[in-house]
Amino acid sequence: MRGGIMGLSRRRFLSDVGMLTLGVALGTFGRRSGARVEVPKLPWPYKKLDPDAVARRAYEGYYEGRCSYGAFEAIVGELRDEVGYPYTLIPTGMMAYGRGEVAGWGDLCGALNGACAAVNLVVEDFTSIIDELMAWYVREAILTYRPPNPRVEVEATSVSGSTLCHVSVARWCKASGFEVDSPQRQERCARLTGQVAAEAVRLLNDYHEGRFGSGSVLPASASECGRCHIEGGAVGNVKGKMDCFLCHRRHEM
Amino acid sequence: MRGGIMGLSRRRFLSDVGMLTLGVALGTFGRRSGARVEVPKLPWPYKKLDPDAVARRAYEGYYEGRCSYGAFEAIVGELRDEVGYPYTLIPTGMMAYGRGEVAGWGDLCGALNGACAAVNLVVEDFTSIIDELMAWYVREAILTYRPPNPRVEVEATSVSGSTLCHVSVARWCKASGFEVDSPQRQERCARLTGQVAAEAVRLLNDYHEGRFGSGSVLPASASECGRCHIEGGAVGNVKGKMDCFLCHRRHEM
Repeated sequence: MRGGIMGLSRRRFLSDVGMLTLGVALGTFGRRSGARVEVPKLPWPYKKLDPDAVARRAYEGYYEGRCSYGAFEAIVGELRDEVGYPYTLIPTGMMAYGRGEVAGWGDLCGALNGACAAVNLVVEDFTSIIDELMAWYVREAILTYRPPNPRVEVEATSVSGSTLCHVSVARWCKASGFEVDSPQRQERCARLTGQVAAEAVRLLNDYHEGRFGSGSVLPASASECGRCHIEGGAVGNVKGKMDCFLCHRRHEM
Repeated sequence: MRGGIMGLSRRRFLSDVGMLTLGVALGTFGRRSGARVEVPKLPWPYKKLDPDAVARRAYEGYYEGRCSYGAFEAIVGELRDEVGYPYTLIPTGMMAYGRGEVAGWGDLCGALNGACAAVNLVVEDFTSIIDELMAWYVREAILTYRPPNPRVEVEATSVSGSTLCHVSVARWCKASGFEVDSPQRQERCARLTGQVAAEAVRLLNDYHEGRFGSGSVLPASASECGRCHIEGGAVGNVKGKMDCFLCHRRHEM
């Protein structure tokens, strides 16, 4: 699939060359014209990154463009600094929409969305890494990352139990007593962004050093309910790996 | 113009352009160096697209790389063909991870994720467009798009009621009687990918022609429950725009 996506078809290639040739001939591209650059096939070359540096960059990125941008810019930005091209091609602001996942809808945690997009750039078998990252997010105590120079002091931790933004945030608000629009909640999400980006990079480092073991434990209900509901089962009407019992009672669907 | 280009081979073209661009490269990245290309600030220039062409491309893209890639490649790919640079910089395979949202976790619908990433590339106020797209997705009958040459015949429609992949899929399975791992369900998601990408492009076309009106109606519970739960309210512990009553009963949180 990947080769098909990134390998230029002859038709599309001729189209690209045509636009260049026309642009050069007629000068129609003006200031919008740019170098014709080859975009290499995915996955792109990875270089081991420092999780602490990535966490700091993601934390700062949160305050520039929120969670999804913060995590994506931290990983891709470090690769831009360490590897250069082709990471120089990516406008990392393109993942800003994932904030409050997405645009505030409260679906998938934006830090996860941004980190997963970065993982997709560098690993062909991105599902293995993403499974680990998502399962870690669900079970891990959130807010164990403390930046060197925090903008706000905040101590409370909580376990999200879900990859959904609004669940993760609501549980933290309950545990901490802070409201969702408080500076403390923003600081919590900034630190979480750092923590998620750093964890993604730890997994990527392991993967590229041949030390990655796919041992993610999915929520128990995903396999219990999955025996009937997930593809291949007797009911077979659901795709998913989330904890079913966050929202459903047994046999209600 | 497209086909009549001098019969240059891709290799020869890249070689020629490569020599040119290497000449202006800074040379700091060794053999991995590539063209130094300016990546313009977001948002990038948009050109009105044909929703039908986008839908067809997204439908085909689904069968190459699933939902998130399909929607993203359809919009960015059409812009690559119609505008060229800077859309030529984006490796659209980078959004493949969103399939089954994400990597099969069943969170946000991947077609929405891919379409939203494309919207983020072209509109600074992406939240307005995304709100419309998400609200449309929740309320709209799914599977009204029929491709010119469908791979599988399938008629059943369903209203998703949610932006979550697993809810949208499960409701369609219930309405249609097909299982989640059936070719019919895949075809449904391929058509849905076409429909979502086309709707995103209709909104973008309206926006760029000054005809966009932000009139999205969020699920009623988002405002009913939001009076207390969403930021600024008495409880203030949630961010989100989804239908609360899909998973929660009144006052349980």
